[in-house]
Amino acid sequence: MIEVVLLGSGNVATHLFKAFSAAEGIHVKQVYNHSKNSLAYFQNKTEITTQISELFEADIYLMALKDDVIPTVAAQLQDKQGLIVHTSGSVALEALNGCKRKGVLYPLQTFSKENEVIYSEIPFCLEANTPEDLQLLKSLAEMISGKAYEINSQQRRKLHLSAVFVCNFVNHLYAVGEQICQKSEIPFDILKPLIAETARKVQNASPAKVQTGPAIRNDQSTIKGHLELLESNENKKIYELLTSAIQTFHGKKL
Amino acid sequence: MIEVVLLGSGNVATHLFKAFSAAEGIHVKQVYNHSKNSLAYFQNKTEITTQISELFEADIYLMALKDDVIPTVAAQLQDKQGLIVHTSGSVALEALNGCKRKGVLYPLQTFSKENEVIYSEIPFCLEANTPEDLQLLKSLAEMISGKAYEINSQQRRKLHLSAVFVCNFVNHLYAVGEQICQKSEIPFDILKPLIAETARKVQNASPAKVQTGPAIRNDQSTIKGHLELLESNENKKIYELLTSAIQTFHGKKL
Repeated sequence: MIEVVLLGSGNVATHLFKAFSAAEGIHVKQVYNHSKNSLAYFQNKTEITTQISELFEADIYLMALKDDVIPTVAAQLQDKQGLIVHTSGSVALEALNGCKRKGVLYPLQTFSKENEVIYSEIPFCLEANTPEDLQLLKSLAEMISGKAYEINSQQRRKLHLSAVFVCNFVNHLYAVGEQICQKSEIPFDILKPLIAETARKVQNASPAKVQTGPAIRNDQSTIKGHLELLESNENKKIYELLTSAIQTFHGKKL
Repeated sequence: MIEVVLLGSGNVATHLFKAFSAAEGIHVKQVYNHSKNSLAYFQNKTEITTQISELFEADIYLMALKDDVIPTVAAQLQDKQGLIVHTSGSVALEALNGCKRKGVLYPLQTFSKENEVIYSEIPFCLEANTPEDLQLLKSLAEMISGKAYEINSQQRRKLHLSAVFVCNFVNHLYAVGEQICQKSEIPFDILKPLIAETARKVQNASPAKVQTGPAIRNDQSTIKGHLELLESNENKKIYELLTSAIQTFHGKKL
């Protein structure tokens, strides 16, 4: 049985708590947050505390905290025998320096409180200082997911950067599509199958090889027409830049 | 039985042919293309021709052709009694002026020859000049799909524009993610569940309401770190513009 103390109560903490609680072989002994209000969800499910000094002994102290508080909280965990772990894509393992044992378990997924997540489909990017601690994290990850990857701090930053492109930026393009539809009284529902298929397509194909649309065809009359249709200056700039980027990427730049 | 003559042999034509052939109540009598080579796929499945003058009589002449040849081909169909239909997102119904009956059946989906498409999930955007012809297109669409929408030419151009954002531009962001991974020897597979979940999320939620990431949090230290990590000037520009666009969209602009 892997005993876990969870630090944090946001989206990532909540989803990991659910996944760990459902898994055999993992016991979340305690959840910490500095504010008691945000521990309401956990209150009747496990022990809670607002004091770092009251943390139980555990195999793993898992910090699902904002990036900028990770070093501060880690500094208060230096006497712990357990493995101190953060879950951030952009914070290096070294942020935990001073702790006896340190690791990273970065779940590469977008979490929101209202959405159920299929844990078995979350890739966990793991890092630790010793093979034993890496194995411990691997066991933890595999108890809730089939997919564990060993990723060093430098690679993890690149992965986090990639995730901004394929998730955060992509979502904004969905929002632009929705905005254009709304202004013309078109139900956004019409775009949903296209959104789903565009994501599905790259599950088995390289996105670089399945690019379609007016930019890669260098269809100037459609591009010109689209730029005239765009009312928002911001969206016009996005259209121009991404059209140009697609043409550069595929060597079609005039 | 709706009798169809299909003009064109590209991705859209091929997928519509498959869908129509599988549907009861639709008969694709003939497929036309000016080049015989590109008709190879259809050769043993139905009649083929390279001559417009040899087209059979049919209820619907469905043009799945490049935008710029639609008016030229339509001009050669002016004596036909059947409904002349194009399948383009960016061409107005008026491009068929001179034809006795005219309509549009725009399948809002991304097609590629190698991918199977689930036809029941394709929204068909329909337009016609008379209620009877609209009903005929609706029957055709419903025989292969549950979803038919009445969309006028102006709305269709906006839909096509939206589709460029949520499909073509999104795919390029996937390609950028893949490129960043490749350079750091990270398997692109790690990003696939995130790509799938990002698309899944907006099937039931407004993308404007589920935006996440450093831009909307105005997390300047992560943004700065990401810009330093980016090697390609083009990708740096995309990062800056989309970060700024997200902040403007959500009223977080400093």
